Amino acid sequence: MSVLLEFSMTPLDKGESVSTYVARSLEIIDRSGLPYKMGPMGTCVEGEWEEVMAVAQACYERMRGDCRRISIAMRADYRADKGNRLESKITSVENKLGRKVKS
Amino acid sequence: MSVLLEFSMTPLDKGESVSTYVARSLEIIDRSGLPYKMGPMGTCVEGEWEEVMAVAQACYERMRGDCRRISIAMRADYRADKGNRLESKITSVENKLGRKVKS
Amino acid sequence: MSVLLEFSMTPLDKGESVSTYVARSLEIIDRSGLPYKMGPMGTCVEGEWEEVMAVAQACYERMRGDCRRISIAMRADYRADKGNRLESKITSVENKLGRKVKS
Amino acid sequence: MSVLLEFSMTPLDKGESVSTYVARSLEIIDRSGLPYKMGPMGTCVEGEWEEVMAVAQACYERMRGDCRRISIAMRADYRADKGNRLESKITSVENKLGRKVKS
Repeated sequence: MSVLLEFSMTPLDKGESVSTYVARSLEIIDRSGLPYKMGPMGTCVEGEWEEVMAVAQACYERMRGDCRRISIAMRADYRADKGNRLESKITSVENKLGRKVKS
Repeated sequence: MSVLLEFSMTPLDKGESVSTYVARSLEIIDRSGLPYKMGPMGTCVEGEWEEVMAVAQACYERMRGDCRRISIAMRADYRADKGNRLESKITSVENKLGRKVKS
Repeated sequence: MSVLLEFSMTPLDKGESVSTYVARSLEIIDRSGLPYKMGPMGTCVEGEWEEVMAVAQACYERMRGDCRRISIAMRADYRADKGNRLESKITSVENKLGRKVKS
Repeated sequence: MSVLLEFSMTPLDKGESVSTYVARSLEIIDRSGLPYKMGPMGTCVEGEWEEVMAVAQACYERMRGDCRRISIAMRADYRADKGNRLESKITSVENKLGRKVKS
């Protein structure tokens, strides 16, 4: 559980509304069993490198089935000896501030 | 309210724990009055281009005060004639799926 | 000259080929007078925060004129007391390796 | 050869100068045999998904050996029926403009 991966995958050849394609990715992420959190600009998944990248690849393979061009943004954060960071990164900031933030 | 900006600002010269610096940015974002949502890998802010970029710049100026190297990641999504997308992008995916996702 | 900004701006409502829109951005970047370098996945511009962000905003305003949805990726690297990093970051890696890399 | 991947991997626990670590990644990328191009903010590698991701993973495994926190940014561009885009994306923009850009 040492990697947090946020990723976003968007077809460029399907017009301005792409939520149908995002929904298919969310289905794959949800079925993976890994902890995840969807946000307005991408979804964060937590696990080992191989696990989170396997989920990203499954979403890519699915989208490639009927999209001719796909733009993919990914950011990962590895930290040794830490887990459950999907929640703890926000909590840690809240502890520094001494109050809740919108999350 | 046509731009969603997700951004993340990290000092490279302060060691592996950076939540003190992230907390200062959150304070600036919160005080801006713009709608926002903190996630595990960055914070999303919604507004016009000038508004969201002014918030990012204020966080940068603050961090530059005592950090010698800063890494900044930003992704923005502009969409004409749409607002309140901090919430509606997730809802739109949930409607396609016919159920809630973790968010 | 303390900020390196790499950015990429893509319309989502214009189909899979977007080089016409990228070319318009390059024209704006080139005319800005700031040092820049186009790469396969984005263009790097060097200057102060206000300068590089003004260029990004000009590209955004131009694209918004006839695009309904735009995806923007930006990454910036601030470093105190350093300049001309468009070239020096690559040279520095080559010096460590003791040979040229493809750039 | 349908995927262009740009990636950048940075340790957060090694201070402001990280070119030693970037040089090690470049060595791995160079030895992979895949076409690549180093830029000021990241390196672009071209190949199939499995190929470019294997290179990114090798760089990650190497860095994880002696870094406690690593920040990774990746952006990929898939396009069906296109190859050699490390060069052709820039050429295509130059053709639209009718002149060379700085690259």
